[in-house]
Amino acid sequence: MSKPSLARGTRDFGPEVMAKRNFIFDNIKKVYKKFGFLPLETPSIENLSVLMGKYGEEGDQLLFKILNSGDFAKDITEDSLTKGSKEVLKRISEKGLRYDLTVPFARYVAMNRQQLAIPFKRYQIQPVWRADRPQKGRYREFYQCDADVVGTDSLICEAEIVLMLHEVFAALGLTEFVVKINNRKVLAGIAEAVGAAGKEADLSVAIDKLDKIGKEKVEAELVERGFTPENIAALQPLFSLSEEKDIFSFLKTWLKDSATGLKGVEELESIWTLVDHLGLTSPKIEFDPSLARGLSYYTGAIFEVKALNVSIGSISGGGRYDNLTGSFGVNGMSGVGISLGVDRIYDVMEELKLFPEALNYSSTSVMVTNFGEDTLASSLGILSEIRNAGISAEIYPDSAKMKKQFEYADKKGIPFVVIVGTEEIEKGQYQLKNMINGEQSALSLQDIIHKVND
Amino acid sequence: MSKPSLARGTRDFGPEVMAKRNFIFDNIKKVYKKFGFLPLETPSIENLSVLMGKYGEEGDQLLFKILNSGDFAKDITEDSLTKGSKEVLKRISEKGLRYDLTVPFARYVAMNRQQLAIPFKRYQIQPVWRADRPQKGRYREFYQCDADVVGTDSLICEAEIVLMLHEVFAALGLTEFVVKINNRKVLAGIAEAVGAAGKEADLSVAIDKLDKIGKEKVEAELVERGFTPENIAALQPLFSLSEEKDIFSFLKTWLKDSATGLKGVEELESIWTLVDHLGLTSPKIEFDPSLARGLSYYTGAIFEVKALNVSIGSISGGGRYDNLTGSFGVNGMSGVGISLGVDRIYDVMEELKLFPEALNYSSTSVMVTNFGEDTLASSLGILSEIRNAGISAEIYPDSAKMKKQFEYADKKGIPFVVIVGTEEIEKGQYQLKNMINGEQSALSLQDIIHKVND
Repeated sequence: MSKPSLARGTRDFGPEVMAKRNFIFDNIKKVYKKFGFLPLETPSIENLSVLMGKYGEEGDQLLFKILNSGDFAKDITEDSLTKGSKEVLKRISEKGLRYDLTVPFARYVAMNRQQLAIPFKRYQIQPVWRADRPQKGRYREFYQCDADVVGTDSLICEAEIVLMLHEVFAALGLTEFVVKINNRKVLAGIAEAVGAAGKEADLSVAIDKLDKIGKEKVEAELVERGFTPENIAALQPLFSLSEEKDIFSFLKTWLKDSATGLKGVEELESIWTLVDHLGLTSPKIEFDPSLARGLSYYTGAIFEVKALNVSIGSISGGGRYDNLTGSFGVNGMSGVGISLGVDRIYDVMEELKLFPEALNYSSTSVMVTNFGEDTLASSLGILSEIRNAGISAEIYPDSAKMKKQFEYADKKGIPFVVIVGTEEIEKGQYQLKNMINGEQSALSLQDIIHKVND
Repeated sequence: MSKPSLARGTRDFGPEVMAKRNFIFDNIKKVYKKFGFLPLETPSIENLSVLMGKYGEEGDQLLFKILNSGDFAKDITEDSLTKGSKEVLKRISEKGLRYDLTVPFARYVAMNRQQLAIPFKRYQIQPVWRADRPQKGRYREFYQCDADVVGTDSLICEAEIVLMLHEVFAALGLTEFVVKINNRKVLAGIAEAVGAAGKEADLSVAIDKLDKIGKEKVEAELVERGFTPENIAALQPLFSLSEEKDIFSFLKTWLKDSATGLKGVEELESIWTLVDHLGLTSPKIEFDPSLARGLSYYTGAIFEVKALNVSIGSISGGGRYDNLTGSFGVNGMSGVGISLGVDRIYDVMEELKLFPEALNYSSTSVMVTNFGEDTLASSLGILSEIRNAGISAEIYPDSAKMKKQFEYADKKGIPFVVIVGTEEIEKGQYQLKNMINGEQSALSLQDIIHKVND
């Protein structure tokens, strides 16, 4: 008999946690729908041919692979064993678990584009799996909540994402956040302007650490990454960029010789304008030239949302990828999207105590007592009438002492208990106990229903 | 570039299908909640030590196993390879995918029983995975919708399940069904009464085929399964059982020497009485002594729901297991539950055309046109005001010909389009087109909001 345990990096979500998680999911869904996104679900299991090579070398490592069923070992040759895990893998595994929602979405679009209304706006809320080393706030199974538009390169989509983020966090009561925005093309333009064209990824990785390690060490890292003293000298304006009054104008001058860079600045300006047209009051948006997530796939806008005044920072990320379905043989489909990290949002909301107090995790409004045979038929009849009035209710299933039944109701967070004893049945008046304030009164069934429904 | 494909036995659920599936899920959840069940979610990935040995030899085979991450092949010795897949498996896989929702539920209860309000009533709606051979209506990844009570052997729970099933199917508009009920103890009693104590499983497998193969062949099969002519002679009352006016009375006489059998009949009678006390009008319940599902674990009541007049029959099953958490070292926890097969229910509802016509899969109520720069600011402002009125809305993201924009709205099932041209902007009156009946009229923004909200 083994003592049962959870697989490392996974979690159970009991009723109380579920109530809070559903509060987050429901609000996200409501906003996604309000912006015209349609639901999609893809299978947890995908062919490895769909997944492999999409997330870089490290991603391939972190994919959970599923063993072929049946007598898989017969396909392991001694030769393959000598060659190692990579070679053996090909022989014993064809499928893996979903690693994110973007690649399955791209596969779905590639396979179904004839039937879809293009541009296709979909939201998808499902778990993903990564064989990462588990640690605080990092799980091997976790939910993503994505919304993406594919089939248009209109910057209205970027602006809509900004609006949508504001609405989601407003709905959750999370008011202290900032939507950081960058553009891959601006990064490319800066690299070009300083004489290091094509090295925007290296540039970003170093610049990203400015806050943490300071300018000197960033410059040292740039040297390590192959930047020349001339490159670094030319880069100086970047370090004082945040002091510029009109950053976009400054960038347009600085990057005047980089067509790509200018295009990036223009796109950023457009997003700001469109957000304004959409009437967003006090937008919490900020251009951040050091924001560099997803540089292996994003080609335009890059988003990140940071919650302020909490230990966990980043709660959402996204961006535009010009050729979303390219790896599935369908070119020319540009997409832009956002992914909300529910687990992070949950932790932030816990830390800031943002979950509504009224969020009662119990689905039961009324418990009816059970004092055994003499009263059971009446208890069940009353239970049934309460339910028929649309109220969620249950009966304590065993005949037990009042105390035990009350303890159950209390532990489950049930707000009302109806006491059905022989005396009550005779009078047609039942004790209704309010479990929150302790009040108790004798009422007719009609009045009970009325009171509970209040 | 590989042509993308779905893993065998898995499916994508696009927006239209999702709308229908959510209709089913939402109704099931509503009823489960109304009966006081609380939500639980467990991880998709469980340790194999939790899963193996719980579903029989065949179940162990059908579990999807996950390859250990990292350099797994180093643990495959030549010796293990000689011994075959079973031996290799131990070395390269520790985890598997959830096979059903009952075992994870039992694990959860065993691990958390101190914190739970017992009896614990939980519902759980999640996918499960089985490495079955895929065929029509049988998938490798499919959802189960379970509701179970653990920690009481009160038959009220069985009666509540009967009520709950009636409410679920009523909510779905599925009125033609029958809840078949049997009791493991009655089967055991019959086996005992005919002199074949302990052979109720063999008995049931044969009897179950009565409708299909007739009495003679059933008797032949019983002989094959080791029943003597005396056993079979004594079994004759079973074949005419359905003709009995009062089956329960008849059984009480027939099984008078089997304490177990009498207990089973008593339990059945109680369920009928309790269902009556609960006020279920025209209950669609039927005692079926040949119902024999889950005999490897059910110890009391056995349920099955059959949809009538459709090709697919069974849409739900369940029962009572006296020692639910026993395999996790926690004894004395009796449980009873029901599992709804969403995929089956979906197919039945499609076949009988039961999905509400009004089930519009589009989440968007209004599309605002986009005719480019001159009108964009106005279009976005209007979009924003429509949304602020709580209406889900979107703008066509690109400036395109009217026809193309209308085609999009039509394909997506958007019921209203607001046309925002320069003339409209000047007048402050916008064309509102009803995409369903084709009507079009010039209205102020206020009137548009009013009309859409109607």
